[in-house]
Amino acid sequence: MKTVIVHSPGTVANLVCGFDILGLALKEPYDIMKLRMLDTPEVIIRNRDEFNLPTEPHKNVAGVVLLSIMEKINEGIGFEIEIKKHIKPGSGIGSSAASAAGAAVAANHLLGNIFSNDDLVQFAMNGEKLASGVKHADNIAPCIFGGVSLIRCIHPLDIVSISSPELFVTVVHPQIEVRTSDARQILRQQILLKDAIRQWGNIAGLVTGFLKNDLDLIGRSLEDVIIEPVRSILIPGFDEVKTKCKEAGALGGGISGSGPSVFMLSKDEAIAKAVESVMKDVYTKIGIDFNTYVTTINKKGVEVVKGE
Amino acid sequence: MKTVIVHSPGTVANLVCGFDILGLALKEPYDIMKLRMLDTPEVIIRNRDEFNLPTEPHKNVAGVVLLSIMEKINEGIGFEIEIKKHIKPGSGIGSSAASAAGAAVAANHLLGNIFSNDDLVQFAMNGEKLASGVKHADNIAPCIFGGVSLIRCIHPLDIVSISSPELFVTVVHPQIEVRTSDARQILRQQILLKDAIRQWGNIAGLVTGFLKNDLDLIGRSLEDVIIEPVRSILIPGFDEVKTKCKEAGALGGGISGSGPSVFMLSKDEAIAKAVESVMKDVYTKIGIDFNTYVTTINKKGVEVVKGE
Repeated sequence: MKTVIVHSPGTVANLVCGFDILGLALKEPYDIMKLRMLDTPEVIIRNRDEFNLPTEPHKNVAGVVLLSIMEKINEGIGFEIEIKKHIKPGSGIGSSAASAAGAAVAANHLLGNIFSNDDLVQFAMNGEKLASGVKHADNIAPCIFGGVSLIRCIHPLDIVSISSPELFVTVVHPQIEVRTSDARQILRQQILLKDAIRQWGNIAGLVTGFLKNDLDLIGRSLEDVIIEPVRSILIPGFDEVKTKCKEAGALGGGISGSGPSVFMLSKDEAIAKAVESVMKDVYTKIGIDFNTYVTTINKKGVEVVKGE
Repeated sequence: MKTVIVHSPGTVANLVCGFDILGLALKEPYDIMKLRMLDTPEVIIRNRDEFNLPTEPHKNVAGVVLLSIMEKINEGIGFEIEIKKHIKPGSGIGSSAASAAGAAVAANHLLGNIFSNDDLVQFAMNGEKLASGVKHADNIAPCIFGGVSLIRCIHPLDIVSISSPELFVTVVHPQIEVRTSDARQILRQQILLKDAIRQWGNIAGLVTGFLKNDLDLIGRSLEDVIIEPVRSILIPGFDEVKTKCKEAGALGGGISGSGPSVFMLSKDEAIAKAVESVMKDVYTKIGIDFNTYVTTINKKGVEVVKGE
C-alpha cells in the first residue's frame, strides 16, 4: 500500500499579546512520521521514540485524527503510522499539534489531497481536544499553513496567513512540567477593559509589524498585560530570561503556548545565538535542565518529504 | 501677519472592534479654519457658523490647543482664528478633533512646521481633554495623519499609519444627543476574557484586511462583541440600520466614535449610495431628523489650502 513520510514542525502559539489567535511555525524541531494506508479500517500506531505515548488509537493524538478522517471518508481503509517525535510532549512548542497536523497532512496526501487545509485543521483539532481538552487551532494552523497564522475566529473557523519578515527564533525549554489545563485554569475569566484595550493595540501593532516588515513595531508590540503576568509565575526564571534576552538584542518574546518554553524573536542569527547563551546561563544558574533551539520561521508547515 | 486656511476633516473613531485604538479620516465633511499670527500673546476666536461655541480661549477646543502651542514656544506671539464648522458638535464624527487638529496643523504651518505630526497629536489632545474629559487620539491621529490610524499605545504615544483599500464611507447622523461622557460611563469596566479573545481576533483581522486589501476579511472582522452591544441601545434604529445596510451590500460598520452617528464601509459608490437610502428610510420611518454623507477615506488629513 501507499506510504508517505512527513516532517511536522514545532509551533509557538499565542505570540505574547496574541493569546489564542496567533501562532507561528518553527523550522526546528520537527517530528518525523511515516504513514501507510491499510485496506482494513483500523489504526496501528508504532512509536519510534522514547516518549511512551499511548498506542491505542483513541488515546493517541495522531490516532484520533486518523480515526476522524476515516469516519469522514467511510471507505473501509485504515492507516499504520510510525512516529518519531523530536518535539517533547509538554514542552509548550506544539508537540501534540505536530502529531495531529502531521497525521492529517500525511493522510490527506495518501488520499490524493481531497481535503483543504481548513479541513485538515478541523480534523487535527480533534487531536488537540484529546491532548488539552480544548479544540484550539493556534498551534495546528501554523503547523499546517506554515509561517504566522491568525485564527480570527474558531466558530466558524477563519484562518488568515500573515506574511512576516525573516526572523530568527530562539526557544528555551526548561524541563519542568506546566500542564496546559493548569495554565488555563489560573487565568482570570474577567479582565479589565483598559487592559484589553492595551492588548488589542499591541495585537494590531504586532500584525501590522509582521505585514509591513517593521521590526521596531514588532518589538514594541510584543507586550502582554493580561496572560503573561499570571502565567509567568509558573515558569522559574521567566522575568530574568526575558529582561536579559532583550538586553542581548532580542526584539521581544514571551511564553510559548502555555509554557514552560520561552521564545524570543531576533532580527539575525548572531543575536539569536547571543539570546540562546543568555537562556543557557539563566537556567544553568537556577539549576534546571533545559533544551534550546535557534531556528527560523518555517514558511511551509508540515512537509511531505517522501511520498508515493 | 501671516495667515493660513486649512480644511480639517471629520473622522470615524473605534472602527467597530477597534475601540480606542483605530480611526479613519473622512473626505467630507470638513471644517474650514483661518488662522492669523498675532504679535501679542493672546488668542482671539471668531465663529463663522451657527453653533455658538465658546469664544473664550480656555473654553474653546481650538483655543486650548493654540494656548498649549504658545506656552510651548513661549515667544510672545498669539493667534486669531476664524472657524467655520461643518461638522456638527456631538455628531460622533470627530467635531472636536477637527477643531483641535486643524488649529494645531494651521499653527504649525505659520510657525514654519517646527513640530512633528506626533507633537501635533499631543497638542491637539488638549482639545479632546476639554471636549470629553479624556485625552484620546483615535480621532486626532487620523485627522492629522489621514487614512486609517492605529493608536497602538497612548502612554507613550505610538501611532501607526495603516494603508487601506479605496473604500466608500456612508455616515448617518441621527439628530439625537449622545454625550461622550455618558457613552463612556455605561461601559463595563470588566469584560469576559473569551469576549476579549474574540475581539482581538477581529482587530487583527481588520488590520490585516486593510493592509492586504482583503475586502471580505474586512467585512468578516467588522464585529464588536464588547462595546456595541452596550452602546447601541443609546441609538434608536441601530440594529435595523446595521442589518439593512449589510443586506444592501455594505461590508459592515457600526457606531462612529461614541455615536450617535453610524457609519458603513462599502467597496464602491453605488453600494455606498444604496446604503445611504437605507439609512434615510429607517430614520424617516422612525421620525428622527438626520444628515447623511457619502464619502471616501481621506488619505491626507488636515489640508493647508492657502498659506503665506
